[in-house]
Amino acid sequence: MAAPRNLIAVEPTSRPEMHLAMASAVQEAGGTVVPIGEASSLMFADPTAADSFPELMAQATNVEWVQLPYAGVETFVQHLDPAYTWTCGKGVYAPPVAEWIMTALLTAFRDIPTFARAERWPAPTGRNLLGTRLAILGGGGITESFLSLIEPWGCDVTVVRRQTDPVLGAARTVTTDELDDVLGRVDAVIIALALTSETQGIIDTGRLQAMRNDAWLLNVGRGGHVITDDLVNALRNNEIAGAVLDVTDPEPLPDGHPLWELDNCLITPHVGNTPAMGLPLIADRVRENVTRWIANEPLVGPVDVGLGY
Amino acid sequence: MAAPRNLIAVEPTSRPEMHLAMASAVQEAGGTVVPIGEASSLMFADPTAADSFPELMAQATNVEWVQLPYAGVETFVQHLDPAYTWTCGKGVYAPPVAEWIMTALLTAFRDIPTFARAERWPAPTGRNLLGTRLAILGGGGITESFLSLIEPWGCDVTVVRRQTDPVLGAARTVTTDELDDVLGRVDAVIIALALTSETQGIIDTGRLQAMRNDAWLLNVGRGGHVITDDLVNALRNNEIAGAVLDVTDPEPLPDGHPLWELDNCLITPHVGNTPAMGLPLIADRVRENVTRWIANEPLVGPVDVGLGY
Repeated sequence: MAAPRNLIAVEPTSRPEMHLAMASAVQEAGGTVVPIGEASSLMFADPTAADSFPELMAQATNVEWVQLPYAGVETFVQHLDPAYTWTCGKGVYAPPVAEWIMTALLTAFRDIPTFARAERWPAPTGRNLLGTRLAILGGGGITESFLSLIEPWGCDVTVVRRQTDPVLGAARTVTTDELDDVLGRVDAVIIALALTSETQGIIDTGRLQAMRNDAWLLNVGRGGHVITDDLVNALRNNEIAGAVLDVTDPEPLPDGHPLWELDNCLITPHVGNTPAMGLPLIADRVRENVTRWIANEPLVGPVDVGLGY
Repeated sequence: MAAPRNLIAVEPTSRPEMHLAMASAVQEAGGTVVPIGEASSLMFADPTAADSFPELMAQATNVEWVQLPYAGVETFVQHLDPAYTWTCGKGVYAPPVAEWIMTALLTAFRDIPTFARAERWPAPTGRNLLGTRLAILGGGGITESFLSLIEPWGCDVTVVRRQTDPVLGAARTVTTDELDDVLGRVDAVIIALALTSETQGIIDTGRLQAMRNDAWLLNVGRGGHVITDDLVNALRNNEIAGAVLDVTDPEPLPDGHPLWELDNCLITPHVGNTPAMGLPLIADRVRENVTRWIANEPLVGPVDVGLGY
């Protein structure tokens, strides 16, 4: 027997701020927060608690839809049962992450790490982002949001993705087959992909060698997109200008790791979207989707169970 | 007797790269580079050699127009004889300087100096620039260029200038009379003014106290706009969030100056526009103005001798 669509569970409670934000959003959308045994759907409220998912779902007799809290769903992949409708935070966190990409590009090109570490007046170095050639790997919401932010800069942006569907604001969209050619032509390579078996380790020694010596690598996808040891070698040998990494493998990067020592590497601690930035954004998504769910309308941010993102 | 307008001096030769860039631009515009005694106009080719100006002009019998190399003309102020037509690099260097402002805002808001100095995984801090309230002091070319770059960010930008002529892209334009009110309402204050007797020391203890505790101060104008000792006190007492300074007083900032020690202060070494970024830009201005001069058309970037900028 199907549960009334307005009865919605928000679980677990292990992350109180997210639980509160999601529960408030459910109520604002006209839903009622109930235990999972009575619920038509589940707002999963702790991105670090994927392991507790099977136990929680064992109590769910009528759940038809599951809303996940993050854009990346890789920790939930083994739980993605096609019997349910799945949605995630896809697109929700795109503007802050796109802002991180702009920050990282400007930080790198304008030599901010050198200046931040200086204890006396340094040499006047730096180059412009204006008018440069960039490649971004991935054609999702982050890329769309980034393209809107970089528009006034007059850059030539190539999007590299699985299919060639054009992305608004890009100079061109190519498939991953052409990645090596693109790498040799751009001033910066930005990884904004979902992590799948196809994209795991996509940046390795060969790909780093395909890049220009004066090009920067940015990673705001997942640490697993880059073979860390290969990157350390490329940075040590100045085969690329440098790297700005918001995600690392392993993550967090352990004390004493060689990347901490390299002047041409800047680590940011997975802050493309911080909890403080993201909470109001995921609450907006929950409010939107609960409204749609109760009205029996299509949900935003569907997860393709077959593709795993 | 007036000299033919196509006869143009490029002096001094003390900065060979700028001399070459300007001389090439004169020729590309249809001019002929001649000694100053034969010239109708002078392209002044060394921004650090203002002291040599009177001696050079003593040889100039027919010069009617002087093109200065920088946007700021304060080192030439005592030489601004209204008998000549004066132009400068006003507006030429605006895009790189506007890019510096965006870099500084993002660097500050997203905590990049903290991350650049970290030797182990830091806490996930930072705030968004998206949707913030900003004030920019000055309504010139840098401000116009900055407003075009920040447009997609959805920020609320107040321009503070001498007159209330609106600036395209600003939410509002107010006069300096309203500065204290504006300072209390914004997340960042950006100084992009020319240095004049009216703007010297415009940011002092009172103005710093008028700012919010969580607001950033950016200076890409001139060091003299800020009373340095007052800023040191405000930063030490966390009366503002921090400062990013591309210009300082004194400049270069001497070794051991207290600003080097403050975690909430980032110094960049006058790189809003570096020589490498600026040379092609001033060459474009010389080419444009020599073309106009020969055709007897109005010149771009006029200096108002009375106002001194």
